[in-house]
Order: sequence, then C-alpha cells, then structure tokens
Amino acid sequence: MQVEIWSDFVCPFCYIGKRRFEAALSQFEGQEEIEVIYRSFELDPRAKRDNNTDIHNLLASKYGMSREEAKAMNENVGNQAKEIGLTYHFDTMIPTNTFDAHRLMHFAKQQEKLSDMTERLLKAYFTDSENISDHNTLAKLAAEVGLDQQESLAMLASDEYTQAVHADVEEGQKLGIQGVPFFVINRKYAVSGAQPTEVFLSALEKAWSEEKPLTILSDSPKGSTDASSCDDTTCNVPTNN
Amino acid sequence: MQVEIWSDFVCPFCYIGKRRFEAALSQFEGQEEIEVIYRSFELDPRAKRDNNTDIHNLLASKYGMSREEAKAMNENVGNQAKEIGLTYHFDTMIPTNTFDAHRLMHFAKQQEKLSDMTERLLKAYFTDSENISDHNTLAKLAAEVGLDQQESLAMLASDEYTQAVHADVEEGQKLGIQGVPFFVINRKYAVSGAQPTEVFLSALEKAWSEEKPLTILSDSPKGSTDASSCDDTTCNVPTNN
Repeated sequence: MQVEIWSDFVCPFCYIGKRRFEAALSQFEGQEEIEVIYRSFELDPRAKRDNNTDIHNLLASKYGMSREEAKAMNENVGNQAKEIGLTYHFDTMIPTNTFDAHRLMHFAKQQEKLSDMTERLLKAYFTDSENISDHNTLAKLAAEVGLDQQESLAMLASDEYTQAVHADVEEGQKLGIQGVPFFVINRKYAVSGAQPTEVFLSALEKAWSEEKPLTILSDSPKGSTDASSCDDTTCNVPTNN
Repeated sequence: MQVEIWSDFVCPFCYIGKRRFEAALSQFEGQEEIEVIYRSFELDPRAKRDNNTDIHNLLASKYGMSREEAKAMNENVGNQAKEIGLTYHFDTMIPTNTFDAHRLMHFAKQQEKLSDMTERLLKAYFTDSENISDHNTLAKLAAEVGLDQQESLAMLASDEYTQAVHADVEEGQKLGIQGVPFFVINRKYAVSGAQPTEVFLSALEKAWSEEKPLTILSDSPKGSTDASSCDDTTCNVPTNN
C-alpha cells in the first residue's frame, strides 16, 4: 500500500500531521507493507529567502492582524505541537523560501534517505531555528542523515532536481490539493490536514481492507511456459537453475 | 492515469510489446493524461557480460535445441518485430548482462529522459548490435538522448542506482510478475505479454472509465479557509495574490 504525503517544511500543521500519521502507522496491522512517499508542495513559491523579521511580524502583516494576535495564534499552534511531543520555537524561527530544501529532499530520495531528510528539515525549521534555504546549512543537515556533504553542496549549487519538485507540485495540482498536509492513500483515498490519529488509522484500515490483487486483463493465450523461455508473447524468468 | 511497464532490454517481446502499446496509446482518447513509467526487470540476473558466441548458439544450449531450431525461432520473432516496424538483427546481436543498462535507465529517469533512454537501449541491442553492458557504449547512447556523456560514464563506474534497479525488481516480485513485458495500469489492471494493440487499448479504456477522483475521508472540520492561512489543521495556499 502506498501513502503519498504532500507537505512543506515551513507548514506547522505538516509536522504535527506527520507525527499523528506516524502514531496511526505504529498502531496499524499492515505497517510493514506501507510505502510512504513525501511529495513537494510550496505554500508560497514567492517567499523571500531573507525576510529580516520574525514569523510573528510576517504573519501579522500577511493576515492584517496585530503582532500580539499573531503571537497568540502561534502559541496556540505551538501547544498543539507540544501535545504530540514537538517543540516549536516561533520566536527564533527563520522564515524563508523552501525550494532548495525540496530539491534536497529529492536528492535524498534518490539515495534512499527520503524519510530521514524530511524529518531533519522539519526539525531544523521548527525546533532548531536553522535557515533552511542556506546551502551550507542544508548540506550540513544532509550530512547528518548520511548524505555526502560536498556532493549535497554541489547539487544545491546546480539546478538539479528542479524538475522533480515541479513534477510533485503539478501532480498535487492535478489531484486538486489546495492545502497541506495532504495524505493520499493508493491514489484512492485522501486525508486533508493534520487530522487526529484515529482518522489516519481508519483511513489506512479502509484502504487496506479494499486493496485487491491486480486483475490480469489478458495473458499469453497459448504457447509453452518453459522456464527461461520466451513463448508467443512473453519472456519468462527461470523458476530455478 | 499511470502505466508502469516492467521490461528488460534483451527481451524480444518487450520491444514488440512496447510498440503495440504505443500504437494503442496513439489511438486512446486520454493519451495526454497517461504517465508511462518503465521499470527494471532482469530476465537473467546471472547472464554473463561476455559470451563469446551468438544468440542462436546461446538459445540452443539454453533450451537444448539445435542451432537450426534456435535460428528458426529467432526468425519467427524477427518476423513479428518486422510487422510492427522493428528490425531485429539476430545474427549480430551481442547477448550480455543488462544490469548496468538498467542503472543507466534510472539515471536517465532522474533527468526526465526515461522514455528516450529506454527506446535507445532497446534499439541498440536489437537493431544496432551494440554491446549494452559496455560502459563506453552506454555513455555514448546516453549522450545521444541528451545526457552528459562524462557524467554517465562516471555514474556507470560507480554503483549508483543499484538500489533503484533492485527496488523495481522487488516491486515486480511483490506484484507476482514472472515474465515480461508486464504492463500495470493504476496498480489495478495488468496486461501480461506483447498482446495485440486492441488488448492494450481496451485495457486503457477500462481503467480510464473506472478512474474516480480521490475520496476525501476527512477534511478540516472547522476553522477559516482564508487564502494564505493555516486554519485548525491545514495550511492553505494563496488563491490569488
């Protein structure tokens, strides 16, 4: 079974939703059979790399509220994060553009480090107050999950994996995604938002109970099926030798 | 809609099946919406890189038939290839191991050249009598489809993309694939073998007619849905700004 998770590294509910989903997964009977794929989503493709202000002021000006209201909103989100064991440091968080972090995620995916890299980037932003658009910072984080630091730096300096990020974003648009986190199970069911753990668990169970083996619409109509052979339409693998 | 095609570069029915599938695709109303993904399958992981004999002798010894019988079998396959516009040169074909060709295919996939690279490798083996385990040959073929020749050579000298090939092979095993080509549509329907074009077309139409939008199992239960905002569970993208 396949679960695709569209998210962004500066989206507070993405990290919370990830934890709630992981809690559901740990209770799910079929957890060994689940492939989790993180997909790129940019909440704000035009976000600046350097903002010279904190997240409270940025939110206040974005939503037309006072700094105090923005702080109260963040505090509320921080409390929800705390409930599931996460620490959000809004006061020192460095708001920035996430495109290069997404490229790094795809670079990590190619080296079987998708899951570790995603977690590390979220923690870097929300907990460690790191600048996740700075290439040296990103390469250091990559090294922490087992990637080569110099190779990561070289990749970041290039425009590699731009296509991969765009492909995820476009795929998300085709699926109608307007907000994140967004969880897609077997391209059949979706859970939108950082829902409670029980919602994720029941979605997993529903998709699991309905999963069927492939329906073969045709098969070699005739011909031998000798091992190691090609019959009229198919080349078969050796069954033993 | 997604079509995954498990195949190997030395499998005569894989190239024939590819052409028949492509013919079906060209007649299919939803062709613009189809994502085709080639996946790795090794007919014989233990195949030698150098065999010092031709494909007729190799087949004869493998199946315990005479060289003349093997030649007749190949001629029959060659005629089927010709019917769909392919030229197979069995007399000069260079039988070899395909693992590195599969690694190259995944390298090309990362650079959005999956389709061109797959076609080029099949033609190199069946039509051009190229040695598709030779790194210089492979790098030259890569350059022909727009990849960097030196980078391809360096990749081939490393063990990069080994995991990617193994992942495809394992995924195929999980799906129960025993022979190739094997076409999987939306992880729901399968076509096994180089079936006639009409079979592919009707499989595409069946899957297409049954495709449904995602079922949202939950959505933000409350909260505002202001553009550019995070409500109780979701961060939304700007609708316009």
